Amino acid sequence: MLVYLSRSIAHAIPLLFMSDIVYGYKTVYPIPLGMGSSWNPDLIEKAYQNTAEEAYAGGTQVAFAPMVDLVRDARWGRVLESTGEDPYLNSRFATAMVRGFQHDLKKGKGIVSCVKHFAAYGAVEAGREYNSADMSLPNLYQNYLPSYHAAVDAGAKMVMTSLTTLNGVPATADKWLLNKVLREQWGFKGIVISDYASVYELTQHGFAKDSQDAADKALDAGIDIDMKSPCYANGLKPLLEEGHLSESKLNEAVWRVLSLKNELGLFEDPYRGASHSLEQDDILTDNKRQTARQVSRESMVLLKNDNNILPLDPEINQKIALIGPYANERGMLGLWAVHGDTKNTVTIEDGILEHIDGSALSVEKGTDIIRDKEFLLHAGMNSDQVIQLLSDNDAELQNHERAISAAKQSDLIIFACGEHTLQSGEAGSRTKLRLPTNQQDLFDELVATGKKIITIVISGRPLVLTDVAKNSEAVIEAWFPGTEGGHALADILFGDYNPSGRLSMSFPYSEAQYPIYYNHLATGRPEKDSQHVGRFVSRYTDAPTQPLFPFGYGLSYGTTHYGEIQLSRETLHSNETVEASIEITYTGILPRDETVQMYLHDCVASVVQPVKRLIDFQKIHLDPNSKQTVSFEISSDQLGFYDQTGSYTIEPGDFDLFIGKDSNNVQETQFTLV
Amino acid sequence: MLVYLSRSIAHAIPLLFMSDIVYGYKTVYPIPLGMGSSWNPDLIEKAYQNTAEEAYAGGTQVAFAPMVDLVRDARWGRVLESTGEDPYLNSRFATAMVRGFQHDLKKGKGIVSCVKHFAAYGAVEAGREYNSADMSLPNLYQNYLPSYHAAVDAGAKMVMTSLTTLNGVPATADKWLLNKVLREQWGFKGIVISDYASVYELTQHGFAKDSQDAADKALDAGIDIDMKSPCYANGLKPLLEEGHLSESKLNEAVWRVLSLKNELGLFEDPYRGASHSLEQDDILTDNKRQTARQVSRESMVLLKNDNNILPLDPEINQKIALIGPYANERGMLGLWAVHGDTKNTVTIEDGILEHIDGSALSVEKGTDIIRDKEFLLHAGMNSDQVIQLLSDNDAELQNHERAISAAKQSDLIIFACGEHTLQSGEAGSRTKLRLPTNQQDLFDELVATGKKIITIVISGRPLVLTDVAKNSEAVIEAWFPGTEGGHALADILFGDYNPSGRLSMSFPYSEAQYPIYYNHLATGRPEKDSQHVGRFVSRYTDAPTQPLFPFGYGLSYGTTHYGEIQLSRETLHSNETVEASIEITYTGILPRDETVQMYLHDCVASVVQPVKRLIDFQKIHLDPNSKQTVSFEISSDQLGFYDQTGSYTIEPGDFDLFIGKDSNNVQETQFTLV
Repeated sequence: MLVYLSRSIAHAIPLLFMSDIVYGYKTVYPIPLGMGSSWNPDLIEKAYQNTAEEAYAGGTQVAFAPMVDLVRDARWGRVLESTGEDPYLNSRFATAMVRGFQHDLKKGKGIVSCVKHFAAYGAVEAGREYNSADMSLPNLYQNYLPSYHAAVDAGAKMVMTSLTTLNGVPATADKWLLNKVLREQWGFKGIVISDYASVYELTQHGFAKDSQDAADKALDAGIDIDMKSPCYANGLKPLLEEGHLSESKLNEAVWRVLSLKNELGLFEDPYRGASHSLEQDDILTDNKRQTARQVSRESMVLLKNDNNILPLDPEINQKIALIGPYANERGMLGLWAVHGDTKNTVTIEDGILEHIDGSALSVEKGTDIIRDKEFLLHAGMNSDQVIQLLSDNDAELQNHERAISAAKQSDLIIFACGEHTLQSGEAGSRTKLRLPTNQQDLFDELVATGKKIITIVISGRPLVLTDVAKNSEAVIEAWFPGTEGGHALADILFGDYNPSGRLSMSFPYSEAQYPIYYNHLATGRPEKDSQHVGRFVSRYTDAPTQPLFPFGYGLSYGTTHYGEIQLSRETLHSNETVEASIEITYTGILPRDETVQMYLHDCVASVVQPVKRLIDFQKIHLDPNSKQTVSFEISSDQLGFYDQTGSYTIEPGDFDLFIGKDSNNVQETQFTLV
Repeated sequence: MLVYLSRSIAHAIPLLFMSDIVYGYKTVYPIPLGMGSSWNPDLIEKAYQNTAEEAYAGGTQVAFAPMVDLVRDARWGRVLESTGEDPYLNSRFATAMVRGFQHDLKKGKGIVSCVKHFAAYGAVEAGREYNSADMSLPNLYQNYLPSYHAAVDAGAKMVMTSLTTLNGVPATADKWLLNKVLREQWGFKGIVISDYASVYELTQHGFAKDSQDAADKALDAGIDIDMKSPCYANGLKPLLEEGHLSESKLNEAVWRVLSLKNELGLFEDPYRGASHSLEQDDILTDNKRQTARQVSRESMVLLKNDNNILPLDPEINQKIALIGPYANERGMLGLWAVHGDTKNTVTIEDGILEHIDGSALSVEKGTDIIRDKEFLLHAGMNSDQVIQLLSDNDAELQNHERAISAAKQSDLIIFACGEHTLQSGEAGSRTKLRLPTNQQDLFDELVATGKKIITIVISGRPLVLTDVAKNSEAVIEAWFPGTEGGHALADILFGDYNPSGRLSMSFPYSEAQYPIYYNHLATGRPEKDSQHVGRFVSRYTDAPTQPLFPFGYGLSYGTTHYGEIQLSRETLHSNETVEASIEITYTGILPRDETVQMYLHDCVASVVQPVKRLIDFQKIHLDPNSKQTVSFEISSDQLGFYDQTGSYTIEPGDFDLFIGKDSNNVQETQFTLV
């Protein structure tokens, strides 16, 4: 085997071309946190199939995606790449993304999916990038592991380890995680790759004494490929020669890599048919743009819509002032769209002008996205780029004056604001999750004009929108919406699409509430329904316990009313199912997509359970002014939890069942497992 | 046994009188977070011996203290009751406090110490009161358990469980924690008591289905006494009769309680000699006040002292304006001094007037401590109390004007500000750790006068002092300083005592840095010394990674210089020791107490280790302008850590050793365990 390997280096063993293709290739989708808000895994599967086709045409064979890290703290910049805070919803998306990438992998245009970052990178303490993660086994198994497991079950051929430690062990050298959990418990047969330099970083963690020791520990734990560190390249040969490393262990890793290359047909065609003409045919096609537009529409979340100010009627003769640094900005792809090109982006202005005449619209940026030089330099720009980005003080002043003047002359303001691309994504941890101060100042002045404001927020994370929401008539969370962002936004503004997005991550009142998430464990002194009154309950004295906008929340045009939950039975035995139905009455003139969410609470268990956890959902279509009954089947094996050893356990007893519009707004009933 | 018990109810089995005596009885000491800053366990042992004498005289037999929960997040109000964020320092204080309470327990005036809250109550997530705690075994054993263990080793006869869950199991029904760890591993023979209503709250957690089930699970786990819930009283008899509960299990609990009563001599004298005359003799004596004054002095931390503005020279003829709601306020005892009486408090004004003439001092409160009615009502006051507390708007305006006028006429401002008592302590979780806005507004106006400001902060926790520190010439963190607080402060202000306090808990730049602590695990991409540059290191993009004031930090008058560390050997074998010495040169005219701190870092370990952890310290006395060499002995058994199973492990290899003034300001060397 070794002989074969060293011989074959001279014999043109093909390379694997691998790349970060996290939410699109040339056609860029909304960031995954936006996709999470679509609650539409089928659509996302289609998007990832399209992405695979584009990447295939461009010669990429492995996508370092999906990123399925569960997230509870938006101080961390990489919440951008996650679908959110719920293990079940994340698992559904993990499955969809892997299937999309690997659709027809052998004969078609699929590419290999490498799920990341195994495991629990999303739990970095205090939301600080690369910080350590620490948790109990019940928490790990119940919340953090399911999405990786789902990706493996869906057939992901590669797994990438996290840069971080879990419970004191760097994931890149965690034998328990990589052997016991991944390979033994889950039966994973594919390749495990380190994250960027994480083999070398075992020395920084103080887990390995030098590069060679790092190589030894990583290979021993089950890392097949060392990404971007010199440790394997320089260290494996001496380790073998010194007898520290068994040849069979090395052979296993080599065999896995060669097998995948063989499976992809690279020995026959090292580029898998990638070609310039295929790129012309398959990239940024109308079809793919259409899918992106739909994903973008479904990802956006209408957070507020007082007095039904939205949708706007394009027939009404009103002057709209589109103000803000994102009014006509192509940089709406987010930090990790590494193959995307902003020149293909549809801006918000572009989108709006497809619905109304230019004479009814004035557009003013008002201010730069951010005016903090020091931040930009530290965040990755060089000084020339910073100079180019920032308006000089005179221009900034003029921008500002023109914006206020346009606002005053308008009937309505659309304020397009948000984070700078460099403020989120990897190494974009922040303690203040507000609009950049220059944008907040502009907003304050717009508010002072007394005009109604519709605010569009472009961001890579939940921002603290407490003030923005209070002072806006309507708010749309648009995320970094991707190539078709401007189209999708305009579709929603003018009612060509009835917004259907529902948050997959809580939006806090303030940064100091973190970590905050809906599926927290029951406390002994809940804020409501406690025997204690006043002070001595689980809460903050100076802020709400709840987030500003909870998990599952989002508005649509029109109103729905949920009836009582009907159960097919009130008790069930092991291996039986119960059917839960609910009638939904929709009053509204536009067609509407409704995400019906079902949550469970195990009333008494030997491990304290979340107050609520999502166990199923359906995104249904409602015709104008219609009724529909939605049914879910619940089986006894959905009722379990993980104990202190990480074993799945189902205990008989009572269960609260909730069906509703979001995690706070639900109907409730109860059944018993006997 | 049962027959004996039921007979004996009618036979006058004496009661145990138990109470929260956390930091003093009638003589109130600084809050424990302040005591933690003293780094003087011997002094604290004396303080707790004094407290026991007072409580004994008052008829109390058990103190629900010490509270030894390790804390890393000051959003939690109960950081007030803890000695801080370090397991070693907390353990030293736990030992001191238990010894102080139980000094000469059998024949003298000691009382029983009940250590709390077992375990890891301090790790409530997001600093929200009563929230759940979740962590790995290495973290639990290395950081959270040592202080309880130290208290048990010191002989604490009782243990109180936490109200919270640890890793999904309520501490009050955690068999592993109470049987395996506490009784088997640590050999604890005493009584385990629940916290207030926590047996009943097993139902709220969803761990028990009703009160009787709660009683069953709590007794089964090892709870001997059910505090303040009806579960045992109502539930144990039916459980016995229905055969759910074994009589021998119940007998064990009963026997432990009766044994303690017997040990205390209560069957002979149910009040242990408590008497009114003893109260007269032993409570608030001059001696006890002197000790409190010394504890208070040593607890205060001088955070800033630009241009050596402190100490003030009482001989210099300057006009001092003492301004702020704590200028002449007796309510400086903190929330949990339940036996304290504010009428005995020495105020800051009282203290200062013992050093300078009244003609040189003008005193103005300037504003109320807090002017937030809604908060006060919610925090535990009734509306009459609120009305009494708050000045009416006219009076507030006059206070304000008089304060600014006094400031303008002064040479120097002493600003006495801080939290309201109700803002911290149990159920005092907060998201904004700033001065109340009315105090901040007053401070801003004082700053605008251009006068030099010495700020005294009264608080139950680290506040965010970023702005206050920037705009003050000097800052003293005085905590809730207790009965003798005013004396101690004045002693420091005028140089009768050279401040020696060193923080036992980090002070953050902002609330959004939490959890933050000095002894965090090494990351793979440290902010300094990483192979990565710029963006891709472990940090926030918009705030420092470090706290504003780190663990161990504090200033004194004069300056010290630390020489190089000298080691008696550079390698040691198992069971050997190495001596580390350092010469300290002191330049200053006042005598000074210096806390010399020694930290360790295990360079390579099979569980990633803290970047630094405290392993020893000495508080030494330095004469004016003198030199002293301090020596520490380090034995190989101090070099270990806890693995994934919670077992203590010592691995050979290199160790970094640091000795210095605080956790950031150290000399460094290295040795090797072979």
